[in-house]
Amino acid sequence: MGSGFADMTEHKVKFLPSGRIVFVQDGETISQVARKAGVHINASCGGSGLCGKCRVLLESGTVEGGKSEKLTEQDYASGIRQACLSGIKSDLVIRIPQESVLDTGVPDTAVPVRHKAGMYVFDIEQLKEEGIFASPVDKLFLELSRPSPTYSIADAGRLIKGLADQYDERGMVVELQVLRRLRRILREDDFRVTVTLSRSVRRRFRTRVVNIQAGNWTHRNFGLAVDIGTTTVYGQLLDLNTGRVLAEAGDYNAQMSYGEDVISRIIQAERPGGLGLMQSLVVSTINGIIEKLLDSCEVSRDEISSITLAGNTTMTHLFLGLEPHNIRRSPYVPVSTFFPPIRAGDDLGLDLERHAVALVFPAVSSYVGGDIVAGIMGSGMYRTDAQTLLIDVGTNAEIVIGNREWLACAACSAGPAFEGGGITHGMRASAGAIEDFSLNPQSLEPMNITIGNKSPEGICGSGLLIIVATLFEHGIIDQQGKFNRGLKTPRIRQGRSGYEYVLAWKDEIRGELDIVINEADIDNFIRAKAAIYAGIMTLLGNVGLEVTDLEQVILAGAFGSYIDLDCAMTVGLLPDVASERVKYVGNGSLVGARMSELSNHIRQDVVDVVHRMTSFELSGVDSFKDHYVASLFLPHTDSSLFPSVKKRNTP
Amino acid sequence: MGSGFADMTEHKVKFLPSGRIVFVQDGETISQVARKAGVHINASCGGSGLCGKCRVLLESGTVEGGKSEKLTEQDYASGIRQACLSGIKSDLVIRIPQESVLDTGVPDTAVPVRHKAGMYVFDIEQLKEEGIFASPVDKLFLELSRPSPTYSIADAGRLIKGLADQYDERGMVVELQVLRRLRRILREDDFRVTVTLSRSVRRRFRTRVVNIQAGNWTHRNFGLAVDIGTTTVYGQLLDLNTGRVLAEAGDYNAQMSYGEDVISRIIQAERPGGLGLMQSLVVSTINGIIEKLLDSCEVSRDEISSITLAGNTTMTHLFLGLEPHNIRRSPYVPVSTFFPPIRAGDDLGLDLERHAVALVFPAVSSYVGGDIVAGIMGSGMYRTDAQTLLIDVGTNAEIVIGNREWLACAACSAGPAFEGGGITHGMRASAGAIEDFSLNPQSLEPMNITIGNKSPEGICGSGLLIIVATLFEHGIIDQQGKFNRGLKTPRIRQGRSGYEYVLAWKDEIRGELDIVINEADIDNFIRAKAAIYAGIMTLLGNVGLEVTDLEQVILAGAFGSYIDLDCAMTVGLLPDVASERVKYVGNGSLVGARMSELSNHIRQDVVDVVHRMTSFELSGVDSFKDHYVASLFLPHTDSSLFPSVKKRNTP
Repeated sequence: MGSGFADMTEHKVKFLPSGRIVFVQDGETISQVARKAGVHINASCGGSGLCGKCRVLLESGTVEGGKSEKLTEQDYASGIRQACLSGIKSDLVIRIPQESVLDTGVPDTAVPVRHKAGMYVFDIEQLKEEGIFASPVDKLFLELSRPSPTYSIADAGRLIKGLADQYDERGMVVELQVLRRLRRILREDDFRVTVTLSRSVRRRFRTRVVNIQAGNWTHRNFGLAVDIGTTTVYGQLLDLNTGRVLAEAGDYNAQMSYGEDVISRIIQAERPGGLGLMQSLVVSTINGIIEKLLDSCEVSRDEISSITLAGNTTMTHLFLGLEPHNIRRSPYVPVSTFFPPIRAGDDLGLDLERHAVALVFPAVSSYVGGDIVAGIMGSGMYRTDAQTLLIDVGTNAEIVIGNREWLACAACSAGPAFEGGGITHGMRASAGAIEDFSLNPQSLEPMNITIGNKSPEGICGSGLLIIVATLFEHGIIDQQGKFNRGLKTPRIRQGRSGYEYVLAWKDEIRGELDIVINEADIDNFIRAKAAIYAGIMTLLGNVGLEVTDLEQVILAGAFGSYIDLDCAMTVGLLPDVASERVKYVGNGSLVGARMSELSNHIRQDVVDVVHRMTSFELSGVDSFKDHYVASLFLPHTDSSLFPSVKKRNTP
Repeated sequence: MGSGFADMTEHKVKFLPSGRIVFVQDGETISQVARKAGVHINASCGGSGLCGKCRVLLESGTVEGGKSEKLTEQDYASGIRQACLSGIKSDLVIRIPQESVLDTGVPDTAVPVRHKAGMYVFDIEQLKEEGIFASPVDKLFLELSRPSPTYSIADAGRLIKGLADQYDERGMVVELQVLRRLRRILREDDFRVTVTLSRSVRRRFRTRVVNIQAGNWTHRNFGLAVDIGTTTVYGQLLDLNTGRVLAEAGDYNAQMSYGEDVISRIIQAERPGGLGLMQSLVVSTINGIIEKLLDSCEVSRDEISSITLAGNTTMTHLFLGLEPHNIRRSPYVPVSTFFPPIRAGDDLGLDLERHAVALVFPAVSSYVGGDIVAGIMGSGMYRTDAQTLLIDVGTNAEIVIGNREWLACAACSAGPAFEGGGITHGMRASAGAIEDFSLNPQSLEPMNITIGNKSPEGICGSGLLIIVATLFEHGIIDQQGKFNRGLKTPRIRQGRSGYEYVLAWKDEIRGELDIVINEADIDNFIRAKAAIYAGIMTLLGNVGLEVTDLEQVILAGAFGSYIDLDCAMTVGLLPDVASERVKYVGNGSLVGARMSELSNHIRQDVVDVVHRMTSFELSGVDSFKDHYVASLFLPHTDSSLFPSVKKRNTP
């Protein structure tokens, strides 16, 4: 897994022409940051500085390096730099030359170059084509007639009549905070005002007038989309008129210091005062992100009228102050799966104005949360005819199968292996984590590639996948994950937990220990991937489908975005499907939150979608156990399920 | 005008069997207090202690006096007292013997005995008969099944399903504050819970679940009705299951220290910080009343889910924090005449729990406010076939004419004479004010009756009316209000403002001045009554009716309640109609607020009623001016308009 936007941020980097903004650490290269921001820059050499294709124009700010023999003196003087060689040392504005821009899609989180072709785009254009680009928050400009003895109705009546006469908007409710400012604002610019209408998620509810401004401000209409992750929280500032993402920011969920997984957070929340603490921590994280988003654009706080948030069921409960206790206790009953629209400020403590309405994505159950529902909405799978598998791989894998007609879902616990847990040298996807790996087939010497190009400190989830797949492909481990004892290399040796492969010698890395991967680690990995594969197969079986029926596979989540597809099939983590059928939605939760900020139709569809979803319980089901046991091999006991892997491994 | 509940309260008096509670001043008699509380006690001698009919049983507490020759020693020992002779010296519980109870109607404010027969009762029984006794706040008891692996839906879903299955209540919205307590409360009494449903005023809106309690609490369902008067604020605590008024309390509007009329309050509100100050003052007044109401009953704050408030347009604006500036400026445009349902606590600062919803009565215009709309609802005039005149007499008189088919309304300014303003010895209806008066026809010596039986200090509105009518009936003043200069009595003399009649000599009252009524006072009074009469006649003319078409006249407001009908017709304040057609609604605003707490149908009808009302502007209209000038006589230049007065005055 690569790092998200979550690292300590120091500099603000703005990419043109997209206008996207990210906050980055000092010293990161422009290439790294562009990848994280989802801004594509051509770079065929993988970032080594050799191809010279990653030319960018530095419009403001300073970088370290960035000069190479591929650039002329004239280029350099005019501000051209090589992105992969430019260490960021200040706030920057960078223009990507047209020849370096591959596509203008707006992915949400870091998407590795290897996935660019499959990036799923259910975008603004598609919303517009379908006629459903209609933000739940509208701004309308009104020119009202002045009060006179013959037209002396109340200010509010005047406003309501104006909306009816000029826009055919009827049955409005004018909120108290608008009434309180109405007299003054109406008279500030001679009864020319902009009203903000907040449309209801439920079709039967009335539209509310939530804000009023003197003069015409219809061009300034903004919203926020937020993904509340257990580890990381991401936010986007959206221009609701154009659908554009104006800025993006992320941070670690401040609850992290109270435990890394949802169970430990629930335990915290059960302590006296713990729920309030958990709530205030995540709210403060979101407030920090809002702060960063506003700082990065010329948008003021009171121009934001709407915020949509999505998270797993536990994160949602903690954010709303709902007791999560029973989420971790059989029969796993959450307090609620639907949440009414809520005032972002007064009720939740978000740093937004009174008129801002917060909508929280509904969940299906304790372990199929709003994040996966948002993914379903954001990926558009609920409106496609194609039989689709959507999977968000993490500690808990959420699996959804279906299309516009029906949806089935399940969650299964893969354990923490993909996040570095239970692995001897496992670590999170942060600087120093081995995220890519290759092997010299003759010498069996490794090539480790780490996040941040630092000395290796451990293995992150995506690294683990690639290492296991590579060892297996080269016959260094067998189908059961056991090392080939006959190989003659000092890299393979008997360790404390079975045989192990030395990824890095301690002397090379000036560490206290060699960094290894051992049979116990591989066993943990196999059990994690088996759980996910068994979950997919069980759910497929429950709905009477086979792998070959899948017309589309959508990978969501950070791990899903960084996953090497060939490796995932090699080890049997994902079913063997043609790579052209695989798409990546990135942070599906954030995409869904954004889409729902941009289309009230999508918001309105959410309720139907949740009701349409059939949730299956996997734990304790016989067929799941059978699939699980059969999957405790690389890639599987039944290799006929992985024809392309078989073909690749059989020269 | 008599005093309301507004005096400094010292003792709590509870009347049985009605259970009504009032707060009273030390030393008031039980009879006085019973009148104020609308509790009838037989007393044919007028409270002089002679008839002995006002026997009550003192169940607890102490009184001063109360003993007379009409009581035996045995009576006295068993706790029987004469109400008119018993000065209250502590908190009391008093039982009214069955023979002393005349009716069980529940008037809202003090209604003099003289009006008991005409007291208008649009009461609970009538609501029940019409099938519209249905509080907007319902409590329902649910027994839900426990979570199990086969029934593991979320707590909120379980609740919603229970409401649908057990009560056919569908499409609920469960509010955040309920979700936050839901898990714990459901499990506190094994999934037996009471939910509070708040039904929408607008028919299309959804019902909301606003509260949840463990166990069965359906028998505990309470609401508040509040009349926000410019001078006095009254509140009632209502049992929403029975419709009974459990307690009643009142206090001066704390804004009073910033001016007595709405214009001076508006001016205050226009100053920097003034609006917030005005708002907090009235909110603190209401909070004090809520405190008193709760103190007087075994009802806790969190059992109150609903509060309905009514007031004139200015009071409503100040209470809600809306800028009242344009109410006093032509063309008199208020900020709003409709107000959305509002959270009583968070949005308004009322001392009620989060789940309490406040509904504020809508107004028609700047000078036909929610108080008069509430009067229309509370008096039931909007649902009668009879052509009805509803009039609330005060500084501003609001006049409504109509029935179930149509409604026309107007407001006219009578000036402050009825509240003691502009009258040499005028004063508010408080202790020491002359509220009743008679004259020895021979000696022309007066009999003054004061509020609290204290030494006279001045004249209140109802006293002024009786004095002027009496002087006129006895030929002491003429049709123009000028004294008959030929009468030989030291009581009539030339004063600084024309001739005057001495009501009390300063030596008798140990005052610094004789208390008089002079020609300037009478002139002010005549102008005030002329404005009201002209308003009634102009509005009648506008709708094409004559006085004789009126089938019903309803008098509202404190002054309306204390008015002596014969006197009011003698001076030409009210049109000459048969007394059996006149009814008294008491504090119409409070009645309306109460009825709307007890019947969501009435709430829902309010919007239609307001839209149905045609508002007429009287000031500057020629016919109003003509009527006004013609009314500047006692009773009127055209005495044929007052046939019964003419008949009475012509022996």
